[in-house]
Amino acid sequence: MLSTMQDVPLLISRILTHGSTIHGTSQVTTWTGEAEPHRRSFADIGARAAQLSHALREELGVADDERVATLMWNNAEHVEAYFAIPAMGAVLHTLNLRLPAEQLAWIVNHAADRVVIANGSLLPLLAPLLPHLKTVEHVVVSGPGDRSLLADASARVHEYEELIGGRPTTYDWPELDERRAAAMCYTSGTTGDPKGVVYSHRSIYLHSMQVNMTESMGLTDQDTSLVVVPQFHVNAWGLPHATFMTGVNMLMPDRFLQPAPLAEMIEGERPTHAAAVPTIWQGLLAELTARPRDVSSLGQVTIGGSACPPALMEAFDALGMRVCHAWGMTETSPLGTVARPPAHAVDTPEEFAYRLTQGRFPASVEARLTGPGGERIPWDGESAGELEVRGPWIAGAYYNGPGTEPLRPADKFSEDGWLKTGDVGTISRDGFLTLTDRAKDVIKSGGEWISSVDLENALMAHPDVAEAAVVAVPDDKWGERPLATVVLKEGSTTDFAALRAFLAAEGGIAKWQLPERWTLIEGVPKTSVGKFDKKKIREAHSLGKLDVTTLN
Amino acid sequence: MLSTMQDVPLLISRILTHGSTIHGTSQVTTWTGEAEPHRRSFADIGARAAQLSHALREELGVADDERVATLMWNNAEHVEAYFAIPAMGAVLHTLNLRLPAEQLAWIVNHAADRVVIANGSLLPLLAPLLPHLKTVEHVVVSGPGDRSLLADASARVHEYEELIGGRPTTYDWPELDERRAAAMCYTSGTTGDPKGVVYSHRSIYLHSMQVNMTESMGLTDQDTSLVVVPQFHVNAWGLPHATFMTGVNMLMPDRFLQPAPLAEMIEGERPTHAAAVPTIWQGLLAELTARPRDVSSLGQVTIGGSACPPALMEAFDALGMRVCHAWGMTETSPLGTVARPPAHAVDTPEEFAYRLTQGRFPASVEARLTGPGGERIPWDGESAGELEVRGPWIAGAYYNGPGTEPLRPADKFSEDGWLKTGDVGTISRDGFLTLTDRAKDVIKSGGEWISSVDLENALMAHPDVAEAAVVAVPDDKWGERPLATVVLKEGSTTDFAALRAFLAAEGGIAKWQLPERWTLIEGVPKTSVGKFDKKKIREAHSLGKLDVTTLN
Repeated sequence: MLSTMQDVPLLISRILTHGSTIHGTSQVTTWTGEAEPHRRSFADIGARAAQLSHALREELGVADDERVATLMWNNAEHVEAYFAIPAMGAVLHTLNLRLPAEQLAWIVNHAADRVVIANGSLLPLLAPLLPHLKTVEHVVVSGPGDRSLLADASARVHEYEELIGGRPTTYDWPELDERRAAAMCYTSGTTGDPKGVVYSHRSIYLHSMQVNMTESMGLTDQDTSLVVVPQFHVNAWGLPHATFMTGVNMLMPDRFLQPAPLAEMIEGERPTHAAAVPTIWQGLLAELTARPRDVSSLGQVTIGGSACPPALMEAFDALGMRVCHAWGMTETSPLGTVARPPAHAVDTPEEFAYRLTQGRFPASVEARLTGPGGERIPWDGESAGELEVRGPWIAGAYYNGPGTEPLRPADKFSEDGWLKTGDVGTISRDGFLTLTDRAKDVIKSGGEWISSVDLENALMAHPDVAEAAVVAVPDDKWGERPLATVVLKEGSTTDFAALRAFLAAEGGIAKWQLPERWTLIEGVPKTSVGKFDKKKIREAHSLGKLDVTTLN
Repeated sequence: MLSTMQDVPLLISRILTHGSTIHGTSQVTTWTGEAEPHRRSFADIGARAAQLSHALREELGVADDERVATLMWNNAEHVEAYFAIPAMGAVLHTLNLRLPAEQLAWIVNHAADRVVIANGSLLPLLAPLLPHLKTVEHVVVSGPGDRSLLADASARVHEYEELIGGRPTTYDWPELDERRAAAMCYTSGTTGDPKGVVYSHRSIYLHSMQVNMTESMGLTDQDTSLVVVPQFHVNAWGLPHATFMTGVNMLMPDRFLQPAPLAEMIEGERPTHAAAVPTIWQGLLAELTARPRDVSSLGQVTIGGSACPPALMEAFDALGMRVCHAWGMTETSPLGTVARPPAHAVDTPEEFAYRLTQGRFPASVEARLTGPGGERIPWDGESAGELEVRGPWIAGAYYNGPGTEPLRPADKFSEDGWLKTGDVGTISRDGFLTLTDRAKDVIKSGGEWISSVDLENALMAHPDVAEAAVVAVPDDKWGERPLATVVLKEGSTTDFAALRAFLAAEGGIAKWQLPERWTLIEGVPKTSVGKFDKKKIREAHSLGKLDVTTLN
């Protein structure tokens, strides 16, 4: 029996129309490095998005389902592209400008992008890449930057403002199937070729609703969100689409991602919310310690991308900026969990422990844990397994190029269609996820698992340790054992034996889990999105490039 | 190009599983009239809903798509039915116990209900009705009440607790098409036969997300919602499903809907939110004035069903209970608008005016106004038209009985599928709806519209007026003119001329809109859901039963 409800698809054009009319006075403010930032209303963004769609279709001949790439910072024009491209029926393809050049070229060629919209400030990156981009015919340049870098380009070069100027400010958005592709993002995996995740109108629409639910970010049109997380990184955690649903103002840092300008824009524009990875917050905290600013507006700070060290959370709490942990990945749109403590823990000593978890799953994300042998692991808060998730904004496959069937590698997707996240952790009875490791970073020692992350956190709690990464290395007796690589703070005089004693005495690490192997490094290598790149450490170790001390 | 997202349907079983695990400790508290209310955790409700589904399927043979009726107050067992019936693939059919007996019988027969779950306290209503219910084979009785009333019933009678007891507490919920029927509700229209609206899993799921968005009710698991709006009235405004999505606790009044027990449960259980129609709040306000209680917990009060008089809103504000207006109808699930003031009006003199509107549309509800000649009316806050809406939880048809095609009457649905709400009003540039009339209550005087609601509100602002209803009556010269029917407060000595002068001087009513015809009545007749029943007034007038005074 069918319902008598209207059959209305969930489309990005609907979010745009809503945001640019009912929330037309809400604003996107873009940092320019000048005295005054640039301000554009949602109404103007709606009108300009329509102009961009007209230009793409009528001038550049962009067809339905065609991928249109963006190589841009977080700014108002990038928001326009976020709506114009999917609303007209094409596919927004955000390029991660931090990837190595060869990987970027591979991705553009794989997606067969014909049009790239690029910020002028990124032409030094794009220009040398262009000869390797086989399918690119048009480059649309927005914002300041040296155009002469494109003098020899074989692609046609357009000025963004000239291209869209004078075109109609409304567009008769097509009524699409909500399961159609709307946007895509390649994962910057540390192994193999990058993998494309293709979001649908439906997945982005539902995800936007979830972002606006109380248990997630829960913002209103009285809020301004400082969107530090890049728009080229999992759709800026869904914020540009979600804010148009509820009129939340956005503050966009453009290329000014250094701690000093970030502190300046917080003081000057008084955002109430911010979203970024821990690395950014570490830097900001150091900046604020060195040069205090008024950051009191910033009540809520969403941290994701990797676990937030307890010390960082405490430091931000002390500044009145309440950190809220979230977990997700490119394959999960990304909202997977948000660490809002349950009612019974609020204002109790338990609260901080709940906030340190990755958080609780929303109704639309189903979760299960799978053990090393494929068995189901109970939600008891103690037993660890690989996290698998299911839901309407969770990937079930990867893009395999134009006109091909999607890829479903068995190490990424279960037979019944769940995403294998590659993250290892526990889930409590009340549904709070605590990740302990990437599946590939778990140390398998004598048939037991040792968490590299637990060891790292315990090490980083030592006052002399700036950073620490722990990886598994081969061991004749145990199979694998932990290798602790440590960055000491300047002027520190501690030694490995003292650190190991600290792990046991203060860190709560069991004796059999304590590392024997130790090495000093100058800095932990990072991936393009700022995560510890343990693959590099393992490689350096296997090549004998690390000076390892073994304690008895 | 299709996305690579998982194709996961939006199902009520998912909300149940989520609520009863991750929010398993949240509670439904049901008032019993005894010293201690009854408390049941979401986890227990999940287990018992599974038992109920087993009983319905295995014992009573309920098939897929079969309607299962409930004749129940707001209580934990009704919540169990809310989940069990749709989750297993059947259709929850809530019966409005305030309807006249003949209409109730008509509805049950039209829906072809074979099973009715009824509260024991409602057997005095059900027992005399049963001989007229042609399809009913099973009555399942829950809660206190005299079972002997069913001694002569031809239907089989079951005890709810015995029926579900001992059955498995989990159920392998089927993976349904999200567009399948989940629940149905007949509208208690004042003309013609009742009309069935059939909600889908998809519409209820999306509506639940919207209820939990910041711009709607925006509650968390730290909240307790006093659900006064009946579960037989548009799914209790979506609260039972929405609360299971986010763990909001529910306080259920069962049959204790009088002002005194409501005041008692607010003081005793300290809910943070409540939802009800204005009539309930009027009564509660009188009770609190007569016998003050501590109602300070109640920060947010959602009022819908009909417009909230400004005086009532002010009175509640003064008690620290912030009223939030909302508009909807059976055909809109019901969330159509919520009157949260826009950011720029917060803490300004404009704020109250915004709160008095019906509110702003969420992203998923599209709205347009249509004039008397079918023309589009602009969103200028002044021009009035009939409101038409579109969206994934808006009805596009009515149920026409088992195995038939849905009905799409032209006065209810536009040719392009929008719902004609029958409500007349204006929409401001920033999307705030102000309803002035039901389309059929607008007074068409000499080619212009006069709002009956404006006249009523202006009249009710007079200190001597208890209630007032204005209807259109035929007029030889103008086509229609307003007739003011007034209920005076006890001991009042004002007269019609003074009231008319008050309308002009204090009420801001234009001279040509002032009523000539006046009559005193003892009380405004109400519909089964507490709205002014103007049809009855018009009938009484046309039959010459009203004593009308005409002022010159």
